[in-house]
Amino acid sequence: MAPLPHPLAVLSEEETSIARDVVLAQHPKTIIQFREIYLSEPGKDQLREFLTLEHAGRLSPTTPRPPRLALCQYDVIGSDRLPVYQEALVDVNTRKRVEHRVIAKEHHASLTLAEFDTVVERCLASPLFKEAIAEFNLPEGFDVVIEPWPYGGLDDTDPKRRFFQALCFATNSRKNNPDANFYSYPLPIIPVMDAVTQEIIRVDRPATGGKGDGLEQQTFNRDIVAHCKDSEYVPELLENGTRKDLKPLNVVQPEGPSFTITNESLVEWQKWRFRVAFNPREGATIHDVWYDGRSVMYRLGISEMTVPYADPRPPYHRKQAFDFGDGGGGNMANNLSLGCDCLGVIKYFDAILTGPDGTPKKLPNAICLHEQDNGIGWKHSNWRTGRAVVTRHRELVVQFIITLANYEYIFAYKFDQAGGITVESRATGILNVVNIDPGKTSEYGNVVSGGVLAQHHQHLFCVRMDPAIDGPNNSVVIEESHPVPMNEATNPHGNFYRVTNQTIERATYLDAAPQLNRVIKMVNPNKKNPISQKAVAYKFTPLATQLLLADPNSIQARRAQFAQHHVWVTKYRDTELYAGGRYTLQSQVEVEGVADAVKRGDPVDNTDVVVWNTFGITHNPRVEDWPVMPVEIFQLMIRPSDFFTENPALDVPSSKNVSSRVVQSECCHDSHI
Amino acid sequence: MAPLPHPLAVLSEEETSIARDVVLAQHPKTIIQFREIYLSEPGKDQLREFLTLEHAGRLSPTTPRPPRLALCQYDVIGSDRLPVYQEALVDVNTRKRVEHRVIAKEHHASLTLAEFDTVVERCLASPLFKEAIAEFNLPEGFDVVIEPWPYGGLDDTDPKRRFFQALCFATNSRKNNPDANFYSYPLPIIPVMDAVTQEIIRVDRPATGGKGDGLEQQTFNRDIVAHCKDSEYVPELLENGTRKDLKPLNVVQPEGPSFTITNESLVEWQKWRFRVAFNPREGATIHDVWYDGRSVMYRLGISEMTVPYADPRPPYHRKQAFDFGDGGGGNMANNLSLGCDCLGVIKYFDAILTGPDGTPKKLPNAICLHEQDNGIGWKHSNWRTGRAVVTRHRELVVQFIITLANYEYIFAYKFDQAGGITVESRATGILNVVNIDPGKTSEYGNVVSGGVLAQHHQHLFCVRMDPAIDGPNNSVVIEESHPVPMNEATNPHGNFYRVTNQTIERATYLDAAPQLNRVIKMVNPNKKNPISQKAVAYKFTPLATQLLLADPNSIQARRAQFAQHHVWVTKYRDTELYAGGRYTLQSQVEVEGVADAVKRGDPVDNTDVVVWNTFGITHNPRVEDWPVMPVEIFQLMIRPSDFFTENPALDVPSSKNVSSRVVQSECCHDSHI
Repeated sequence: MAPLPHPLAVLSEEETSIARDVVLAQHPKTIIQFREIYLSEPGKDQLREFLTLEHAGRLSPTTPRPPRLALCQYDVIGSDRLPVYQEALVDVNTRKRVEHRVIAKEHHASLTLAEFDTVVERCLASPLFKEAIAEFNLPEGFDVVIEPWPYGGLDDTDPKRRFFQALCFATNSRKNNPDANFYSYPLPIIPVMDAVTQEIIRVDRPATGGKGDGLEQQTFNRDIVAHCKDSEYVPELLENGTRKDLKPLNVVQPEGPSFTITNESLVEWQKWRFRVAFNPREGATIHDVWYDGRSVMYRLGISEMTVPYADPRPPYHRKQAFDFGDGGGGNMANNLSLGCDCLGVIKYFDAILTGPDGTPKKLPNAICLHEQDNGIGWKHSNWRTGRAVVTRHRELVVQFIITLANYEYIFAYKFDQAGGITVESRATGILNVVNIDPGKTSEYGNVVSGGVLAQHHQHLFCVRMDPAIDGPNNSVVIEESHPVPMNEATNPHGNFYRVTNQTIERATYLDAAPQLNRVIKMVNPNKKNPISQKAVAYKFTPLATQLLLADPNSIQARRAQFAQHHVWVTKYRDTELYAGGRYTLQSQVEVEGVADAVKRGDPVDNTDVVVWNTFGITHNPRVEDWPVMPVEIFQLMIRPSDFFTENPALDVPSSKNVSSRVVQSECCHDSHI
Repeated sequence: MAPLPHPLAVLSEEETSIARDVVLAQHPKTIIQFREIYLSEPGKDQLREFLTLEHAGRLSPTTPRPPRLALCQYDVIGSDRLPVYQEALVDVNTRKRVEHRVIAKEHHASLTLAEFDTVVERCLASPLFKEAIAEFNLPEGFDVVIEPWPYGGLDDTDPKRRFFQALCFATNSRKNNPDANFYSYPLPIIPVMDAVTQEIIRVDRPATGGKGDGLEQQTFNRDIVAHCKDSEYVPELLENGTRKDLKPLNVVQPEGPSFTITNESLVEWQKWRFRVAFNPREGATIHDVWYDGRSVMYRLGISEMTVPYADPRPPYHRKQAFDFGDGGGGNMANNLSLGCDCLGVIKYFDAILTGPDGTPKKLPNAICLHEQDNGIGWKHSNWRTGRAVVTRHRELVVQFIITLANYEYIFAYKFDQAGGITVESRATGILNVVNIDPGKTSEYGNVVSGGVLAQHHQHLFCVRMDPAIDGPNNSVVIEESHPVPMNEATNPHGNFYRVTNQTIERATYLDAAPQLNRVIKMVNPNKKNPISQKAVAYKFTPLATQLLLADPNSIQARRAQFAQHHVWVTKYRDTELYAGGRYTLQSQVEVEGVADAVKRGDPVDNTDVVVWNTFGITHNPRVEDWPVMPVEIFQLMIRPSDFFTENPALDVPSSKNVSSRVVQSECCHDSHI
């Protein structure tokens, strides 16, 4: 019998189908609507045992492997037609359900695209919705577009009921182009659907006023989009076409890439070795990261993000997305071959998602992997001899891109030759916008196109780092640099500053402190660097970006505790992966998120510790962010700190790139004026 | 007669020679030692008049042009053999000296490499120095290397005297390689030379102790480098050679570059138009920056940087370099063709420096210009249709690299297709290190190699922005995002935050405030964005990096006021270019630097305003920074903010790059274990 796949390999289509069949067999004569089926990663004790054998080269076809467990999330539609959300763990090898629970009603399952389809369908059929639309005089040839949204946090409605809302737009159908940008014609109506009854229960009418108009709608403008205009981005609809003076810049790798991939998940490149996985919640995740035979990270993932909007006019306070928890970042991942997303030689990884009937749905090219050049890596010129030695900074990039209706995020894990890992987030896509009356401006956002208000909002990301710095037991140390007053004994000339190191004893949170040059070190207190005598470490400087602005008592804040501090340090627990809690959709408060994990107060010194980093952007939109926003880039830089005994990139060849050349007269000329 | 060169063109070799001849003619029968001769940029009134005609297409060969003024800096050696530092402005067209001044003795001229040569020469001849060296038993085949340094700030010595110090190392000459890394054998002696008498007046003996050993030297170890070891970086000296598994990654531009260069200084690329210049102080500077027919910046330059060291043991408090003011960043610029510094198609610019006799010395390839790809520029996928539109983010890079003995900085001005300008600094090179006794560690730095202590230090950069946002008169606005307590009237659900804008009235300084998302906007209060109704602007978020740590009363701090706040806003004055003051070498206090400019308290609203941004790194070295440090990257991102009426990169073509390809089986295989 062939051995089980690697314990970190994503579930195959076959395994997914087996899991579905086991679930269906447990619920005979019942309607089952599947949400997700994906690998439940093995517990760390079990997985570590396997990985230890693997790294020792002692795996054989008969080595015991952790069971392949499928986490199945589904609704059971009972005789009362009410769906009951349940989760099961299925061992796909033994074809047995090994765990099963009915999720308590205060939690909502994450949404599915099928639910969104229902919202669109029910709006179109709803008399309430039709009445609302009829209040407007849409120009001839304009159709209504319904953009379903999670309902945000509930405050005034029964939290056990499941709702969806939708933002509405008009699209100029006379263009005969399904990619005409409807976002430039926002309609001020927000239908609300009860997800259980599938009824449109209400159509909210947000205000369209400006400064001084207050929080409530004043009067309704029937010509609701007369002051809006086309804002196209697909090339064939651009009024003046695309620019003609950009010449090609090609990345060519004549000998192929420098990486190797084994069994579709093990990546080896420039002394790095790690596994790439994918799940519908986090998208691409990175596992079992080693450098030159030494362990660095057990797991690295984008844990959560929240996007709260700051427009106080009801019901805009409900605009708060949790882009990983609400619908699954991985579920929203792009097929990357559809756009020219990377240059050079690219390796794509497929993902397996789940259809409503539980069948596996392949998402081709959900992750891409490629090398890129990032400028000079290190350089020194000897001024005595004129000899310059310079190397380039090559990076290996694992990238995935998610689309959340109007908006996109590009996430990349970048490994470099100097032992560094950079987690990058690029925000792009189309701003989420609402209608504003002609000629008005607003203190709640910026007018980015006629009649289009882009509301102030924040994007707060949380990256989860599960370090394994040269072994399983690590500590977290806060390094700071403090000024020292001039004094005869220790600082006679005033130039001294003191570098302090404080080990965190118990689970806690803390914030960036650039004025102290606060650096977070993940150290192995049991391994000393033979040169510096310091504990081997990886470090990062938490980005000093603004934290969540919402009032601490607001629903927005209560359900996003993780967004209120930059760094969280917790003791590892299996399945504790989600900073904002397991269930974020329509949550009223963060449940079992990172803040709760901290509250346990576990000892975190010299043990299996997890570090979470929150950073983000307060996004007060610019006109330049319209109609599609140029990327805004954030980088969490995780760097070795006395982990190695020298610059790990020292042996990178410094040979001149033969294909570079000096420009000829083609670019350059003299003018006599 | 041919018209004068463009007023911003650097002085030609011919013009430099004329200036020299005029100076020599003014000082007959005297010895003149030249320091620098370079273009004195025209006053803004005069230059703006010319540029206005140029942009209107109304230049002709007979258009009056600002005179070509050469700033000549030189020592006049009088009959008492004492050099007197003087400066003259020479009109190279009329061959007349138009201004002349003798610099007051409290200021010191910046150093020249000729002075450094003298330090080396005089050390080798000095009995004091020979005695100091004789205290050590250097292993057979080891020679002494003398590394001249500026003397830092004076506190206990006559400030009118000019000194140099030198750090000393030993080099293993048996390697027969002049690029063997001598920095790994530091010697604890610091000779001091009087620059006027050229005498070695003293040899300081810094301590080599560790924790608990106090500030003073205890006992001297004769086998001073016995515990040091080779730390090589040139490839032929690496013990295991260079890695073999890195395959080539080529940047190929088959149709050539997308830029054009006219008259060696005017660069046009992707709607950008600007001039590149060079001077021995700042290196590459950027002038007269326009985008699509609209003015953005009058001038952009790296104004100053300081590198204070934090080891309190005398005389290490004197280790504080001003890398632009002390010796001239431009003077230290690399010939970029000597290393493989860039990929793709590269345009190089030469620079003209000055020899001690005033003759022009061409520095070939001092600046390079090339295009690069920086990942995705913007993307949106329509989830309804599956259509993805994605563009790449192309950048044009103007780069120069300076070497300051052991250390290098890579500076780049990057222009992008979305109207952004990024000023980037990469720190690399070899750490400045000192000897430490065997087995000890220190609270003043990190041991990075046997016997090698890399002291804690800071790098503080200051970028000078002279904006011309859509015209000459600009204001500076502080935008902040403030939380608002939940309240029925304005924030019933607690999600609202208030965005404030405050115009700066009078010259001032201020600091980064990430907790308020503080953004600095350079606005034109006379031009409104037609869509948002806001003043057109460019903005940047000051990097919240740690400011100068030295005690405010220390010499280090007094001479580096500019390093004590992140942002400085001043009224423009001709020639006010240097944040740390015109004369930094051996300064005791910052004179006529940006702090003094602020003290004038000029009105800065709707006028010709200058914005200075200080940022940096507190560099507590890692073992990984040895022997050559991987780049540490800082980016000041200057971005349009309601300057345009849409994303300026909207018309970038989204066509698929034809040379990219999907990886074949070459990288990938399955294993059955």
